[in-house]
Amino acid sequence: MTIAIKFENITAAAQRLEGAAVHTPLLENAKLNKVVGCRVLIKPEILQHAGSFKFRGAYNRLSQLNVDEKKRGVVAWSSGNHAQGIAAAAQLLNVNATIVMPKDAPQIKVQNTLSYGANIHFYDRYTESREEIGRALTEEKGATLVPSYDDPDVIAGQGTVGLELAQQAQALNAIPKKVLIPCGGGGLCAGSAMAISQILPNSEVWAVEPQDFNDTQRSLASKEYQSNSQESRSICDALLAPTPGSLTFPINQQYLAGALAVTDEQVQEAVHFAWKHLKLVVEPGGAVALAALLSGKIDVTDSSECIGVVLSGGNVDPELFQQCIQNRE
Amino acid sequence: MTIAIKFENITAAAQRLEGAAVHTPLLENAKLNKVVGCRVLIKPEILQHAGSFKFRGAYNRLSQLNVDEKKRGVVAWSSGNHAQGIAAAAQLLNVNATIVMPKDAPQIKVQNTLSYGANIHFYDRYTESREEIGRALTEEKGATLVPSYDDPDVIAGQGTVGLELAQQAQALNAIPKKVLIPCGGGGLCAGSAMAISQILPNSEVWAVEPQDFNDTQRSLASKEYQSNSQESRSICDALLAPTPGSLTFPINQQYLAGALAVTDEQVQEAVHFAWKHLKLVVEPGGAVALAALLSGKIDVTDSSECIGVVLSGGNVDPELFQQCIQNRE
Repeated sequence: MTIAIKFENITAAAQRLEGAAVHTPLLENAKLNKVVGCRVLIKPEILQHAGSFKFRGAYNRLSQLNVDEKKRGVVAWSSGNHAQGIAAAAQLLNVNATIVMPKDAPQIKVQNTLSYGANIHFYDRYTESREEIGRALTEEKGATLVPSYDDPDVIAGQGTVGLELAQQAQALNAIPKKVLIPCGGGGLCAGSAMAISQILPNSEVWAVEPQDFNDTQRSLASKEYQSNSQESRSICDALLAPTPGSLTFPINQQYLAGALAVTDEQVQEAVHFAWKHLKLVVEPGGAVALAALLSGKIDVTDSSECIGVVLSGGNVDPELFQQCIQNRE
Repeated sequence: MTIAIKFENITAAAQRLEGAAVHTPLLENAKLNKVVGCRVLIKPEILQHAGSFKFRGAYNRLSQLNVDEKKRGVVAWSSGNHAQGIAAAAQLLNVNATIVMPKDAPQIKVQNTLSYGANIHFYDRYTESREEIGRALTEEKGATLVPSYDDPDVIAGQGTVGLELAQQAQALNAIPKKVLIPCGGGGLCAGSAMAISQILPNSEVWAVEPQDFNDTQRSLASKEYQSNSQESRSICDALLAPTPGSLTFPINQQYLAGALAVTDEQVQEAVHFAWKHLKLVVEPGGAVALAALLSGKIDVTDSSECIGVVLSGGNVDPELFQQCIQNRE
């Protein structure tokens, strides 16, 4: 299978993002280290523009549009974080953006997308096809379609998360044995796994998915594309892609050490832990890697080890957040 | 009036804290910059050990105890953040700690203090004297009393917040015109104002207090110690000191440009803003400086200006946090 990007595409993306994206810090927390039993390096992409890593891929793609393409605008479909990332990047670059969003997207994601000046076209997640709607809108406007993960520039942009994490870890001389990354369509995982494997060849990268959306886990195991049941539900609204991406999966197959899956209950515990001890606001989908760590999916055999974990997004409605932080120890 | 510390005490404290305290990053947020109308540098001490700046002063004081003093332990009184700071520092330094805490302290602060292995002696905030109880415990144990603000080593330790902020701002070549700092007993303000004035002599430092606990504001205006009414109440449990400290106030009088006051409603808005846009968990008392900024207490006349703001603590119970993030735009 063809690998859609090279490491050089990720470093080029990093240059485009310089001064535009937030160079998110690498954090540590004594309580988390103690609970996990070794040093944990936290990459909080919740601090990125629009509250998730998605700004990186969006900006990397949109900043390469030519004048004419910019004039005709962009179309994207997204449950929320790609929507906000596109909207924020489009506003900075003075590009018109139309986003196809499910009617049941979190309100905070809808509000924020609108606040960046994007147009929203709502659809029903369970009865309509966002692809069809998006393609029709694209043709109608002569616009550029920006996929949320199956696009080389988007994958390269998301890969700057892994690039930064690897460089920051190296600067600390704290080389993670394993890095855990949330996985929906697989763009963040694919780009980051490639970047990390280049800089830290001894570090393993693991994707983490919601239990009933573990298509990447099953696809890696069976070596062919697996889909999630249409009946599957999860509070991780950012990670509900039906099947691994056609560009992201070949990269993930080459660069990932494996994939893990967590239950919604474990995710809620992780959101609560981040709130209580890390003092960070993480949305369910952004907390799956932390959930895997806290629920013991990774064996830590030696306290001198180091583990990296990406918190990929923090856009969550107050009701769901409250549900996560209430009545827990 | 005598000034209890010198700038050198703060740099010495910074050396003691090296490797022990978290060197908290200086963050920026596009949404906050836009709302305020200029660049805002955020110093999130919520990311400090035990969730507030208090660890700094506690560690600076406790690390200087001699072997015999360490053996006899320490006593402190605190509504919660000093308690946790002392408990966390004491655990690291293998010192026994007893904390006198009000019965109505936030549960998260009580739990965390216990989790660091400290003993708690509860009292009634409105009918008992924590000073009397604390002094009796100190005598009984031959222990060392560690005040929460009126102590030169504690003030110097808290001053490392301002020291770091000034150094980080300088490295960014972003010199804040004003720096806003939460103020209870005044230790964080005093140490930080001294450090900032030394490194950034053109930056003004402003204390921010809850409306009905604006003793520092009134004391600065009248040039003599003013007290808060015993009837005063605020959700800012960390900032309920009755009157400016006898060591902190002379420093604040010399180094502060002034003081501002915010209502509990403005504080709740700030906690919500931090949750929604900064993705940071800030407790009410830790959010007063942000509240002053968001409620327009500071005139921003030029978008090329820069303002610094300290988020001093993030230890809040879920019920109060929910109240802050619910039903707001």
